[in-house]
Amino acid sequence: MNTTIDLLQRHRSIRKYKPDPVPDEAFDAIIRSAQSASTSGNMQAYSVIAVKDQEMKKQLAHLAGEQPYIAECPVFLVWCADLNRLKYACEPEGGAVIPATAELFIIATVDAALAAQNAAIAAESLGLGIVYIGGIRNNPQPISDLLELPDLVYPVFGMCMGYPDEAPDVKPRLPVRAVLHRNRYSSGAFADGIAEYNETLRHYMLTRAVTRAGSRRDTTWSKEMKARLERNARLHMKGFLNNRGFLLE
Amino acid sequence: MNTTIDLLQRHRSIRKYKPDPVPDEAFDAIIRSAQSASTSGNMQAYSVIAVKDQEMKKQLAHLAGEQPYIAECPVFLVWCADLNRLKYACEPEGGAVIPATAELFIIATVDAALAAQNAAIAAESLGLGIVYIGGIRNNPQPISDLLELPDLVYPVFGMCMGYPDEAPDVKPRLPVRAVLHRNRYSSGAFADGIAEYNETLRHYMLTRAVTRAGSRRDTTWSKEMKARLERNARLHMKGFLNNRGFLLE
Repeated sequence: MNTTIDLLQRHRSIRKYKPDPVPDEAFDAIIRSAQSASTSGNMQAYSVIAVKDQEMKKQLAHLAGEQPYIAECPVFLVWCADLNRLKYACEPEGGAVIPATAELFIIATVDAALAAQNAAIAAESLGLGIVYIGGIRNNPQPISDLLELPDLVYPVFGMCMGYPDEAPDVKPRLPVRAVLHRNRYSSGAFADGIAEYNETLRHYMLTRAVTRAGSRRDTTWSKEMKARLERNARLHMKGFLNNRGFLLE
Repeated sequence: MNTTIDLLQRHRSIRKYKPDPVPDEAFDAIIRSAQSASTSGNMQAYSVIAVKDQEMKKQLAHLAGEQPYIAECPVFLVWCADLNRLKYACEPEGGAVIPATAELFIIATVDAALAAQNAAIAAESLGLGIVYIGGIRNNPQPISDLLELPDLVYPVFGMCMGYPDEAPDVKPRLPVRAVLHRNRYSSGAFADGIAEYNETLRHYMLTRAVTRAGSRRDTTWSKEMKARLERNARLHMKGFLNNRGFLLE
């Protein structure tokens, strides 16, 4: 319908990058675009750490579960929920205590996500590619130490950024009827929509996808989701968050 | 630098809408754009409820803390973190238990936010306006009842959408140096950046802003943030989430 919608719908994650750096002017436009995203009550409760240091990127690639593209991309962004800066914000007014609530945790996490998604879109509009890295939560404490994150700041996810050196296909998504509800939530279309998607994804994975290991797999969404849930990953997150001041009260 | 980046940096929240509906073709493109956003491990752990029913929008406007534009916009979207659909996803494979972890809570909340932000951008690219509604978390249980949300689904935020009937200025953000960190987190620029922003925002609020009440105010970011934190809002969220199956373990 227009170039922006075309861009949004062409998104695919990039895991192979050219060594070329992200030009300063482009990077500046990307960060300013991130800042333009909506933010709850103008709290701007996020920070972004741009890691270009090669040794640090190598350590992050290891700590995120051996994801080499973190070391290979020219800039790795760590998007953090940040309630720490609000302490500084309140200092001219005599300071304030930051409530350790689930609510503020949600606000800061969402603020980080909205800003990051704007950055992703800005980057893609400039011919760059990105991939979100949830693996940053595999080892959040060592990563927080490496990045010198204070309390009340946590790394929500990472993001590789650079010029793509691969051209993967767009990954199909669930049928709209399994995601969009009219006026009220309805699970009426789930079984049918999931069955359709299992076939769609199976075909994609057999014929188009190149997985991180470089091989194609005979799988379905149902199989992938069951395996993922049974892995029951990152049980350390609650303890980590509590230790960093996010009590989720 | 290009039309997409211009669009991202021109974002402003719209709280006054024309009665014209969102055309079906545009709405379809917006939802498909939302679905194209990145999603953790392809879990697509979100749902969106499109509320067009006028009586329901009125109730939501009330429950979100008397925000009349929810009733006035032609379509109100409620973006939900959704771990419930994953139960259906696993049924063809014999079913699965959804771990009530903080980690899955983060995944679903971020998935909802990334999809919503793509929808916001797609909408704005088509000349529509939006505003995020955190007030949906003022009364999350009555709203969940109204929308018939099952356990393991929670409304993260709402979003008004429609053709703008106002043209507010873009709200200034913190200086880049107070948000962007190089390789390591640094609070070095905070005091200075916040002081600069206090002046910027004060000027904006006195000369450009029209607040929800229609009046201009002499304020600063520091004053706004302190007042907001001292309100200590939405202390019910933890209990609400726990009741809905999000134990944040």
